[in-house]
Amino acid sequence: MSFHSMWAELLPVGRSSASGGYRRYAWTGADADCRVWFEEQAASRGLSYEVDRNGNQWAWLGDPAAGDAVVTGSHLDSVPDGGAFDGPLGVVSSFAALDELRGRGAQFTKPVAIVNFGDEEGARFGLACVGSRLTAGRLTAADAHRLTDADGVTLPQAMEAAGYDPDAIGPDPERLARIGAFVELHVEQGRALDLTGDAVGVASAIWPHGRWRFDFRGEANHAGTTRIADRHDPMLSYAETVLAARREAERAGAVATFGKISVEPNGVNAIPSLVRGWLDSRAADQDTLDAVVGGIEKAARAHAEAHGAGLDVVRESFTPVVEFDHALRDEVARILGKDTGLTVPVLGTGAGHDAGILSGNIPTAMLFVRNPTGVSHSPAESADEDDCVAGVRALADVLEGLACR
Amino acid sequence: MSFHSMWAELLPVGRSSASGGYRRYAWTGADADCRVWFEEQAASRGLSYEVDRNGNQWAWLGDPAAGDAVVTGSHLDSVPDGGAFDGPLGVVSSFAALDELRGRGAQFTKPVAIVNFGDEEGARFGLACVGSRLTAGRLTAADAHRLTDADGVTLPQAMEAAGYDPDAIGPDPERLARIGAFVELHVEQGRALDLTGDAVGVASAIWPHGRWRFDFRGEANHAGTTRIADRHDPMLSYAETVLAARREAERAGAVATFGKISVEPNGVNAIPSLVRGWLDSRAADQDTLDAVVGGIEKAARAHAEAHGAGLDVVRESFTPVVEFDHALRDEVARILGKDTGLTVPVLGTGAGHDAGILSGNIPTAMLFVRNPTGVSHSPAESADEDDCVAGVRALADVLEGLACR
Repeated sequence: MSFHSMWAELLPVGRSSASGGYRRYAWTGADADCRVWFEEQAASRGLSYEVDRNGNQWAWLGDPAAGDAVVTGSHLDSVPDGGAFDGPLGVVSSFAALDELRGRGAQFTKPVAIVNFGDEEGARFGLACVGSRLTAGRLTAADAHRLTDADGVTLPQAMEAAGYDPDAIGPDPERLARIGAFVELHVEQGRALDLTGDAVGVASAIWPHGRWRFDFRGEANHAGTTRIADRHDPMLSYAETVLAARREAERAGAVATFGKISVEPNGVNAIPSLVRGWLDSRAADQDTLDAVVGGIEKAARAHAEAHGAGLDVVRESFTPVVEFDHALRDEVARILGKDTGLTVPVLGTGAGHDAGILSGNIPTAMLFVRNPTGVSHSPAESADEDDCVAGVRALADVLEGLACR
Repeated sequence: MSFHSMWAELLPVGRSSASGGYRRYAWTGADADCRVWFEEQAASRGLSYEVDRNGNQWAWLGDPAAGDAVVTGSHLDSVPDGGAFDGPLGVVSSFAALDELRGRGAQFTKPVAIVNFGDEEGARFGLACVGSRLTAGRLTAADAHRLTDADGVTLPQAMEAAGYDPDAIGPDPERLARIGAFVELHVEQGRALDLTGDAVGVASAIWPHGRWRFDFRGEANHAGTTRIADRHDPMLSYAETVLAARREAERAGAVATFGKISVEPNGVNAIPSLVRGWLDSRAADQDTLDAVVGGIEKAARAHAEAHGAGLDVVRESFTPVVEFDHALRDEVARILGKDTGLTVPVLGTGAGHDAGILSGNIPTAMLFVRNPTGVSHSPAESADEDDCVAGVRALADVLEGLACR
């Protein structure tokens, strides 16, 4: 089955006709449809198929027990109303790259596998990369069991409803010990390759990033009858802080975003008692990130004090910088550059990935495919057909270079 | 039954132990409990009890058909996590005032009634004063039938579940034609009486007020990977507009509040595609209100344009200034001042009331009882016991002056 046919087959699964975006959340019907598709792709190629204890899907060429395997793949789930490429491009390109290598008559000296990691986006349970985190021992089974979606359904309940065994989840060091390298292909989620004019690039590092919750507390009151002078309106401090985040990020060449908010009581005629805003911030290095978040918090405190609002700031999650394995990165870049003689761009990224999670356990690398608009996590996310084909060829080259030597 | 006993009996109904506030929404169990309480109060005083076609409750002393009735009362429902006084103080004070007049041996020359208007706050279906609007012909049955709560339950379904007939609702001119005057006692929802040092005041007018929805449209994108320069983040324009609203209101001596917000997709790692903010604004006169809202919209458009965001502004509701009947207002003020020789404060208010709705059909007036903090629509809403007792005495004086002459 060609890249095009695979792509076309997957395209309608979990797509919202209202938004045009994808709603492929972990352990839902759309997720199950994606998983059936993956299993069929494995079967149609005569690959041995297995599901690991954490619900990640694997398709093997060769004997997994032989060791030093070269693994590629990505994920099939999506953010709410996400695009078609984030995740699926990596999985579809993996199967297509394997087809290309077979067409080339490549002789594999190592086992090769394609993987679909479960629940990468964390859209349903609020934690990203659950499948790879569990496998890598970066999330305990007990903590995973406590994850709950917006409807109050727990992760174990959701897994069980989807036909998986939640009691089996946990670290999987034996599986990881069999893997010599993991290479994830992903659509770029920014415009770096568009700006350099390259179809494919290699990842250097994932920026340190975190989430902070800002709780601005004021005094609920009637919006029609409370004099301006008598108000303690936390929405004002929130607004000042949103603007401060933009200023601090611009100054530092970092990013800072208030994209999620929760207001109480959230009534048109009520001054809020609580405005809760979540800050997502990322920067190329730790010092810069500290300076950006520190600057935002300082501005927030100053404004809250001036407007008679209380403020609590809680760091909800944090991931330090991830430097991809230098030897593997250089090897991948060398393989990609050997035909053209050109230098392949090596770039940092602000997004988290399963490859980042696994980088603490095994050598990992990432290939990025150009995204002409840089738009991501949106139905408008795109990649040109020629670039997708170039991505498949690049991944095939890398797999050949790593698994056929 | 004394004011205190009645107050104590009603106090636990619909109270949230979590917030300490009230959740007495139209046609719910808490609302039904309030209605049972009202019917019992009528029965225990030998008043004739009836429910009108719109579900408003009436307790009559004398023959309703005699005409030129003097009616008092308010409502028993609440905003989400509202206070104990907004509404119930008027109903409880009405029964207590009737008791006081009987104790004085007052000879009524006109019929007197106490009313509990249904769904005054509009907490459940989003439209305030549904009971009085329907009765006054200010809301059609067809429009009321389309009202739907957050769970998708329609107003007719809710009324039917509560044992009322939704097919009967509609204008009730015959009932209104029997009423010579309606006087509503209400806790003040600001600090005007606290600042003048008076326990009770009389309403002059309800400020013109309206609700405007500001839809800021941007481009959903990944919060970690989208360069600041490539963003179209509508949250920034929203934040600027919140601050502009405060500036414009302060400058004009008006009020302007962004208390409700809805964000899409509302994800921590997503730049929003849509930030929808609701503006509530009110001012002493129409020209001032126009200037305030015009200024806010102008600032919003300028910022949205500067940040590459789209903006739609929709006026969702609007109520022009309500001047209470001057003759009745002066008569009420004269009655209240006659014992003390003092001038009773006459004050405008930014809040809507059933008395405001009915003022287009019959002469209406309002008494306000001092609110020492001005806090309203909040569990912290309060009134001193002495002031509540003064309110009962004032209402008794007014009823005696109007119905015993």
